[in-house]
Amino acid sequence: RINGDRLWDSLMDMAKIGPGVAGGNNRQTLTDADAEGRKLFQKWCEDAGMTMAVDTMGNMFMTRPGTDPDALPVYMGSHLDTQPTGGKYDGVLGVLGGLEVVRTMNDLGIKTKHPIVVTNWSNEEGTRFAPAMLASGVFAGIHTQDWAYGKEDAEGKTFGDELKRIGWVGDEEVGARADKIHAMFELHIEQGPILEAEGKDIGVVTHGQGLWWLQVTVTGRDSHTGSTPMPMRRNAGLGMARMTELVHEIAMKHQPAAVGAIGHCDVYPNSRNVIPGKVVFTVDFRSPDQATLDGMKAEFEAKAPKIAEELGLSVEIEEAGHFDPVTFDPGCVTAIRSAAERLGYSHQDIVSGAGHDACWINKVAPTAMIMCPCVDGLSHNEAEEISKEWATAGADVLFHAVVETAEI
Amino acid sequence: RINGDRLWDSLMDMAKIGPGVAGGNNRQTLTDADAEGRKLFQKWCEDAGMTMAVDTMGNMFMTRPGTDPDALPVYMGSHLDTQPTGGKYDGVLGVLGGLEVVRTMNDLGIKTKHPIVVTNWSNEEGTRFAPAMLASGVFAGIHTQDWAYGKEDAEGKTFGDELKRIGWVGDEEVGARADKIHAMFELHIEQGPILEAEGKDIGVVTHGQGLWWLQVTVTGRDSHTGSTPMPMRRNAGLGMARMTELVHEIAMKHQPAAVGAIGHCDVYPNSRNVIPGKVVFTVDFRSPDQATLDGMKAEFEAKAPKIAEELGLSVEIEEAGHFDPVTFDPGCVTAIRSAAERLGYSHQDIVSGAGHDACWINKVAPTAMIMCPCVDGLSHNEAEEISKEWATAGADVLFHAVVETAEI
Ligand SMILES: NC(=O)NCCC(=O)O
Ligand SMILES: NC(=O)NCCC(=O)O
Repeated sequence: RINGDRLWDSLMDMAKIGPGVAGGNNRQTLTDADAEGRKLFQKWCEDAGMTMAVDTMGNMFMTRPGTDPDALPVYMGSHLDTQPTGGKYDGVLGVLGGLEVVRTMNDLGIKTKHPIVVTNWSNEEGTRFAPAMLASGVFAGIHTQDWAYGKEDAEGKTFGDELKRIGWVGDEEVGARADKIHAMFELHIEQGPILEAEGKDIGVVTHGQGLWWLQVTVTGRDSHTGSTPMPMRRNAGLGMARMTELVHEIAMKHQPAAVGAIGHCDVYPNSRNVIPGKVVFTVDFRSPDQATLDGMKAEFEAKAPKIAEELGLSVEIEEAGHFDPVTFDPGCVTAIRSAAERLGYSHQDIVSGAGHDACWINKVAPTAMIMCPCVDGLSHNEAEEISKEWATAGADVLFHAVVETAEI
Repeated sequence: RINGDRLWDSLMDMAKIGPGVAGGNNRQTLTDADAEGRKLFQKWCEDAGMTMAVDTMGNMFMTRPGTDPDALPVYMGSHLDTQPTGGKYDGVLGVLGGLEVVRTMNDLGIKTKHPIVVTNWSNEEGTRFAPAMLASGVFAGIHTQDWAYGKEDAEGKTFGDELKRIGWVGDEEVGARADKIHAMFELHIEQGPILEAEGKDIGVVTHGQGLWWLQVTVTGRDSHTGSTPMPMRRNAGLGMARMTELVHEIAMKHQPAAVGAIGHCDVYPNSRNVIPGKVVFTVDFRSPDQATLDGMKAEFEAKAPKIAEELGLSVEIEEAGHFDPVTFDPGCVTAIRSAAERLGYSHQDIVSGAGHDACWINKVAPTAMIMCPCVDGLSHNEAEEISKEWATAGADVLFHAVVETAEI
């Protein structure tokens, strides 16, 4: 069994870095707070006897050697970056859970045939630089590094420049080790309500929802709200309103196997007495079913231009992020399920509603995920909460699945 | 006749201060650019023999003496501040048109019984600090100075602090001269399409629309867009979308005697994969008819909470700006109409769609407005445009109405 108190203490220590405004965290990727979080994680890992490698995307690989020089490593990990108003556990539990597994192996004098690597993937959240899971995506060969380096935040700063600024461009070529992974396990909070509602300790993640992010620019004409007659208006804000309703309707039509919403929007010029001349917003559609996912996107792309036309607006739709629904590796999934069984934790199979680094790593190596419940299913909110018991159960299952896979 | 070329040159010189990004201006109130614009206007007025007084709201009064020490001054003026993406004429034409009238009186050696005052009212636009026409409102006793000083911009800076920072807090008590105004004339671009469509040089403004600005805060719960099931969502963005549609429906119902739109909106936390937990937006309703205006507000206040309730949201509605429909002074209106007749300009009576400083000054002194057409009725847009001929005609009518009222 892992040491739940020690894991919890580390979670609380990490949460001191980049505090939010309401008890959670704002440790967005490639900020000074992110750099500070990385340093602390590096120190903890080195204290536990691990050695660090960093790749050119800033992904951190902390290695505990194995006994067989030819055996490929077993990976654990997730991400330390957070949403602007994020919680203390989303991502962090998977990284520090991995660290706790190694600490426990040290305590118990466990040696494995396969080396163990604990990873912190850069920019999982995708808020500052879209898309999400950017660096694990480059690692897995989905995106090119040049493309990722060029991604801009709201202030026009690029991923490449900011990674350099915080001093975390490593010298290992990104993806160089992608074909040398024995298996990868990611522990994560569920971020949804199912496990808590069902009273289960552990979610054995068999699949993940696919996603489409669309960036939509609606252009009308900014003009005076008081003196422009209603029939002369080209109100981009009204266009956005109708497209928000459209996204909702499309998602509702496919219940319960789909979700959709608009999360980010900017209105121009954003003045009380000016009819909006332009709005830019992003649609987030998800489904575990490929045809449903692509159908939702197609329906939006077909109907949004009609809404625009009726209002004298133009609309441009760009793809801003995408991944297909995921099926995790049956062997890794079985290792997780048997670990939960063996430890006596209640469990059930579950589909991940969110995207995770594991979804990309699954493209290059056998991968699966462990989930623990979170209070009210709430995440991407500073009030995100889990219990120490849930964290402990998740890390225990991670420990057993990893040790079994890495072979004593 | 005034000197149209000189007026145009001054308009173009002023437009160099606080340039926009698309040929217009961003000279928002109490910015460094506003201070620079004030200095230039002061210099031009002093060169024309006027003396300056500034009140504690930063309103500028440039006086040309009259021949009768007991006669109250005749006022002209408008505002030099602009929208964030504003035009070169909205407000500026009325201030520099007043200056051109005085310059012409100097050229022609015209002396008037009543002194002449050219005014620049602070913060007419209301974008940086709501409500609009803030300083003329305090001058007319509608708002208190303390209330106005406490108004905050998006960064939390107050009107009072920013007025001090740019060095334009005058020593004259605001409103001290409010009961010593013989008459006030404001020249302004129409900001709507009517005069251009009717082929008229001059709008004789008999009335002004009333306005209600409502600041609406919709609160839901921010949570993960991917892993929060549709029935568990409390999507404040969807609430805003439905309220945007409601505002549009309410305004359409009262065609053509009403308008309405949402111009400003902020979404929290504004992240692509987070369901909005809070949105704050402003509704702008206008009508020339009091009952219609108040009815629109009442309908929104009744229906918005129902929209919120259906979506599990809460809503708070605050009044952020208001003025009743205005009837301008018949004597001043007649002076404008006869001036246009005398000068041979085509003209028609018109209702102002926008709010103007003249609407507040009309509460304390006989007031009226002159309008000139603007291309495509476009205003609150950097592409706002007028012709030199339109500006000249407007200033000519202002000249004649003022000289007649100020008595030679
Ligand atoms: N787990 C998580 O919140 N990842 C961010 C990408 C997503 O929105 O699914
Ligand atoms: N004229 C003008 O644009 N004034 C600002 C106040 C309003 O929105 O009517």
